[in-house]
Amino acid sequence: MTRVVIVGMGFGGVRAARALAGKGLDVLIIDRRNYHLFQPLLYQVATSSLEEESIAYPVRALIRGWKGIRFRMAEVTGVDFERRLVRLVDGEVEYDYLIMAAGGATHFFGLDSVEQRAFQLKGLGHAVRLRNHILNVFERADREPDGERRRALLTFVIVCGGPTGVEFAGALEELIHHELSRDFPGLDMKESRILLLEARDALLPPVPRELQQYSRKRLEGMGVEVRLNTQVKGAEDGAVLLADGTVIPSHTIVWSAGVQASPLAAELGAPRAANGRIAVQPDLSLAGRTEVFVIGDMAFLVQDGTPLPMVASVAMQQGEYAARAVLARIKGDAVPPFRYYDKGTMAIIGRNSAVAKVFGVTMTGFFAWVVWLTIHLMFLVGFRNRLLVLLNWAYYYYFRAQQVRLITDDNGKPPEACGT
Amino acid sequence: MTRVVIVGMGFGGVRAARALAGKGLDVLIIDRRNYHLFQPLLYQVATSSLEEESIAYPVRALIRGWKGIRFRMAEVTGVDFERRLVRLVDGEVEYDYLIMAAGGATHFFGLDSVEQRAFQLKGLGHAVRLRNHILNVFERADREPDGERRRALLTFVIVCGGPTGVEFAGALEELIHHELSRDFPGLDMKESRILLLEARDALLPPVPRELQQYSRKRLEGMGVEVRLNTQVKGAEDGAVLLADGTVIPSHTIVWSAGVQASPLAAELGAPRAANGRIAVQPDLSLAGRTEVFVIGDMAFLVQDGTPLPMVASVAMQQGEYAARAVLARIKGDAVPPFRYYDKGTMAIIGRNSAVAKVFGVTMTGFFAWVVWLTIHLMFLVGFRNRLLVLLNWAYYYYFRAQQVRLITDDNGKPPEACGT
Repeated sequence: MTRVVIVGMGFGGVRAARALAGKGLDVLIIDRRNYHLFQPLLYQVATSSLEEESIAYPVRALIRGWKGIRFRMAEVTGVDFERRLVRLVDGEVEYDYLIMAAGGATHFFGLDSVEQRAFQLKGLGHAVRLRNHILNVFERADREPDGERRRALLTFVIVCGGPTGVEFAGALEELIHHELSRDFPGLDMKESRILLLEARDALLPPVPRELQQYSRKRLEGMGVEVRLNTQVKGAEDGAVLLADGTVIPSHTIVWSAGVQASPLAAELGAPRAANGRIAVQPDLSLAGRTEVFVIGDMAFLVQDGTPLPMVASVAMQQGEYAARAVLARIKGDAVPPFRYYDKGTMAIIGRNSAVAKVFGVTMTGFFAWVVWLTIHLMFLVGFRNRLLVLLNWAYYYYFRAQQVRLITDDNGKPPEACGT
Repeated sequence: MTRVVIVGMGFGGVRAARALAGKGLDVLIIDRRNYHLFQPLLYQVATSSLEEESIAYPVRALIRGWKGIRFRMAEVTGVDFERRLVRLVDGEVEYDYLIMAAGGATHFFGLDSVEQRAFQLKGLGHAVRLRNHILNVFERADREPDGERRRALLTFVIVCGGPTGVEFAGALEELIHHELSRDFPGLDMKESRILLLEARDALLPPVPRELQQYSRKRLEGMGVEVRLNTQVKGAEDGAVLLADGTVIPSHTIVWSAGVQASPLAAELGAPRAANGRIAVQPDLSLAGRTEVFVIGDMAFLVQDGTPLPMVASVAMQQGEYAARAVLARIKGDAVPPFRYYDKGTMAIIGRNSAVAKVFGVTMTGFFAWVVWLTIHLMFLVGFRNRLLVLLNWAYYYYFRAQQVRLITDDNGKPPEACGT
């Protein structure tokens, strides 16, 4: 039986596995986590709106109905292309076809001082850690008599005005002004600041100009300080340093300014392009290795003169394509080159407010907000997860309450020292 | 204004705070966590049935409507009774009246080898860690070719047949045989064993004989091996050692055999009785310190010749009593001694099956099960938490699916090495 190995169960890996189910193949999927994560909603976990469990779905539950698909939870350390072996921390696995879909990691562009101090939003742990931190700085501010130190604790710096930065800024603003302001009656919320820093001259680069301007106005109307053409050059304990020399006293820097290929990409010995991504052929295979496909954030492919972006929709379309390509190879058929069809971009800003460009149509305000909610619910895996998220959103909409305001400890240890 | 400090927001502290709200006092509650935890459902978090967030409720949300109550998240290090000061890691707080309700901790009776390896169920972190571990040993067993090592991975030893042990054993059995058996089609679940070890000659000591026998029969019918008169003397990596010399190969020992007062009790310099509990006067105050009350798992009081048990209902009644006693002291009134009224005990065993002795009436089976569910929902704090738990239970009842089968990482680090 033909053996296919898929590494990674993100948006690309899941689509590839589903398309290969029931085709008479022996498909093994490998991931170091036992769940598929819906990353686009991580920022809602970080802002106390959703339980972490509601945006993760067990891989084994996912594949139960998929014929011929097995799962192994393992860390992949490399690939031996000659011997067609995937190397694991605890063994190795042979393949006839390989689909590498190990995803991406946050890119700090060599800013070590930022990397050591910044929060990011790639994994569940990151989101929970950021939630714990936000609630913790409010607890610390509540007992801090010194005004300057209190204001630094209540200043949140978000780097990059892409969808993650915009959505997180809006959600944090709502958390602070609707919910934490009532949790901490002794604090003056005017001392709290949210800064959204963007190196370029506009928020949300992929959407049209008028949507960018709408987003900026809405965020500023909510109280977020949007600073365009502003670059971060470093961080130290209690401060963020800008390229123009400005020092922003703050204990929270949230970094969503860059994505690079998973560190695993560097272990493959394949030629790499920008952001550590592996350069692939037009059919997503490696040059000279027609049995190996690389998809999603790991893959670098130029279409119409522009590299494909590192976003979920590219990964999903590539996952489906790679599965089709494997099936075609087995039959000896040819496949036309991969083409990405851009269905659109969207970002939620706040209550009843979003921007979207979907299938060429631009939308703002309430209608865009409903479209955003609907599409995110549709793509969330698992009936129960959809129900939980929908309930949370409905609850939040009516009661304006982000309920998961918990500082959870890890492994039964006390939370990160509150006094430091 | 009279200053009351309450240390600990468990079942006792919450009841005391609520009873002191709106009485014209300045009440400060202190806890090292920012949430009240519904411990009786921790075992359902550990067995993938409930999200951890659904059994925790933010203290600041709880006290929002309670007049005169403030909260400070802090670790208490001691009390200066002379100067009437509570010492914190990061400061100190003065009081006129003090209610100590810092709860209990797991008691390993000096079995260090067990303490180093055993899982427990006192905090959210414990439950999540145990869930991660259970799912992890199944992942490891799935790729373990050696039968003996595989069986050791799939053997779960639960120590003590009290309510926690009985409920956890039943829930684990259901998780394994309804859910994990489908997640791991390559594993033979006959290789999995659950042992419930009890040092005495019956399960659930506080309930009548016939309920004890019913519980044992039900558990054995489900496949749990119940061993009475069986004592654990130690543990090593991969094995549990019994007093009679038996060695049980197992990677999982869950310890619910004992509770002792919070380690904070040892820092107070007050005379202590069994299990590190502080001996209190009949009105729950300290001898010679009429302004200091100790309640719940921290307090030792004999009633009708028997020490009061370390259970939630004692803590709740003592919390309400302590609040009344403080109000009486302020007015110069006397209070009658505290008397615990035992409303009953109950334990769920499995689907449609529980045992209960409530208000003197004994029940088994479906009716006891409904009573158990109702009472636990009633005592769970927060409308949304109740809704979430109810939905989870309904979902589980219909679909027989424990949905939270997630191995979550902590702080964005990969999960505990899977290969070790």
